[in-house]
Amino acid sequence: MSTNEGRANRQVRLKSRPVGVPQASHFELVAAPMPEPGPGEVLVRNHYLSVDPAMRGWVNAAANYAEPVAIGAVMKSFAVGKVVESKHPAYRAGDVVTGLFGWQEWAAVGGAAIDRKLEPAIFEGLPMSSALGVLGLNGVTAYFGLLDVGLPRPGNTVVVSAGAGSVGSCVGQIAKIAGCRAVAISGGSTKVAQCLNEFGFDASVDYKAGRLADDLKRACPNGIDVYFDNTAGVITDTCLGLLNTHARVVVCGTVAHTEWDPPPQGPRVERRLLVTRSRIEGFVVLDYQHRWREALLQLSRWIRAGKIRYREDVLEGLEAAPDSIAGLYRGENMGKRLIRVALDS
Amino acid sequence: MSTNEGRANRQVRLKSRPVGVPQASHFELVAAPMPEPGPGEVLVRNHYLSVDPAMRGWVNAAANYAEPVAIGAVMKSFAVGKVVESKHPAYRAGDVVTGLFGWQEWAAVGGAAIDRKLEPAIFEGLPMSSALGVLGLNGVTAYFGLLDVGLPRPGNTVVVSAGAGSVGSCVGQIAKIAGCRAVAISGGSTKVAQCLNEFGFDASVDYKAGRLADDLKRACPNGIDVYFDNTAGVITDTCLGLLNTHARVVVCGTVAHTEWDPPPQGPRVERRLLVTRSRIEGFVVLDYQHRWREALLQLSRWIRAGKIRYREDVLEGLEAAPDSIAGLYRGENMGKRLIRVALDS
Repeated sequence: MSTNEGRANRQVRLKSRPVGVPQASHFELVAAPMPEPGPGEVLVRNHYLSVDPAMRGWVNAAANYAEPVAIGAVMKSFAVGKVVESKHPAYRAGDVVTGLFGWQEWAAVGGAAIDRKLEPAIFEGLPMSSALGVLGLNGVTAYFGLLDVGLPRPGNTVVVSAGAGSVGSCVGQIAKIAGCRAVAISGGSTKVAQCLNEFGFDASVDYKAGRLADDLKRACPNGIDVYFDNTAGVITDTCLGLLNTHARVVVCGTVAHTEWDPPPQGPRVERRLLVTRSRIEGFVVLDYQHRWREALLQLSRWIRAGKIRYREDVLEGLEAAPDSIAGLYRGENMGKRLIRVALDS
Repeated sequence: MSTNEGRANRQVRLKSRPVGVPQASHFELVAAPMPEPGPGEVLVRNHYLSVDPAMRGWVNAAANYAEPVAIGAVMKSFAVGKVVESKHPAYRAGDVVTGLFGWQEWAAVGGAAIDRKLEPAIFEGLPMSSALGVLGLNGVTAYFGLLDVGLPRPGNTVVVSAGAGSVGSCVGQIAKIAGCRAVAISGGSTKVAQCLNEFGFDASVDYKAGRLADDLKRACPNGIDVYFDNTAGVITDTCLGLLNTHARVVVCGTVAHTEWDPPPQGPRVERRLLVTRSRIEGFVVLDYQHRWREALLQLSRWIRAGKIRYREDVLEGLEAAPDSIAGLYRGENMGKRLIRVALDS
């Protein structure tokens, strides 16, 4: 019980409420006392913390899927770590678990905060960090967003914005597995090349090159059947112009706009949707909790078979956390962004 | 063969190509020679011509579902009339038929232009004009648009823009049959009262009264599950703000905007769709040709049972045709707009 006594638990807390993208200045690093797990709780040593675009929404005041993080509270985030001490019957020391453990080194959490224990059948031979990316939120988002909402059919053209990202790269590879032509949109020659060479897209378009409409048209000679949207903005407007009849647009992220209250203006979509009989649908992976294991089992099989590759962008130490979300929105990461807070993993 | 000799066939032809809504000045009334049906054709005496908002798209140059009507050609329109002479094995004199017979008194057409013969099982005791409205395009649009795309469930709140219109009024009544709360949006106190008293909506909102957001919120205390959109524009923007999770928006018409090339600007929808996991989907009833009879049989049963009421706005004589589309966009019709060109019906 007293092994951790006298040690500090370093945390990143929300200091002030951002409008739009949270910057480093909205957070503060503090040393708190070590938490003690109460009855029904476990003490988790966090190894990796997650950095996701959705975290912008978690701290903004605007209505969202959940209440915003309170000022002064530890920043909410997904994490993966090891159970060090358990007062919960379902967990024991040594278990590797993921959940909303927050931007901190240690967390005392009840069973409700734990998403799952990492299953050997899924994670055998793969690093625990993958549970925060390709074998976690990102991979499962790609899996259900593309397959259940995008409904790709063999021969379809699937376009993905932020195609080099942790969700987008996985969407493209699943689209290939589903027999589709996969086209990535990303920014800058490094990401464009990565989409082609590392993630196996059939075509890769640079939205920063200034010829998006022409380049995308050339990359999609048969139009677009599925557009997996991680950005909104001009990229989306351009894709809508190339939709085939009965096309499906999956809205998964809106990273091109930093402010949605009030919403930015753009070309109205109704006529385009009517003429093509297409659909735009919002998608939040948390609606698929009950099918999570199905996705993880399939994704891990594809990873082992070499059909899905993934990239991680690992920042070292809690000090990197405050600026890490802003960095995502600056497009500086290559792959799933993580913060490593324990070295023994 | 010679009964019609020497008689004229009065026609309304497209004189110049409109940008936006076609006005009376874009058409001309001419007297053409009587048509003679060739082999495989029938001669139809038109009784009623249809006036539909979609006809704007049929004459505009912008890309649409079909090629635009050529300058100098008879204006394309649906019509209902009687076969006077037949050289087609499937039809005989006396049959009542509907199809794209155009804005003219007589039409010599092949089998491909005929949509269907009016079946006694469906039309017994009902006027042939209903084949152009509630037992034609409008009713079938309401039926499949609401039931197949809107997917209403008992207890849902269904909001319909242009609720007093020939499609909207039918959508509201089918929503009631499906066990939903039906809310109409329309313009002006006459239409608002008609929605409540004649079409049985649970609530009826006047978008011209200047308090749309407040009035709609009051009319939808449990939010909106299905929004059947005939208008786009500010009405749609207001409805999107009240969507429940997993709501369905059916885009059936875009009458609030007269010009879509380039598209008008409006608030971007991505974030709203994402947060509510909702969908916006374009719907064109012509995709449901293979299920037309199913809808007509069901609609005629509901009409006979007094569950669906409908209103017609009948203009007299071909002279009324040129201004009739513009009149629709001025909102002057009460019910399905038709032009009667033969008195014996």
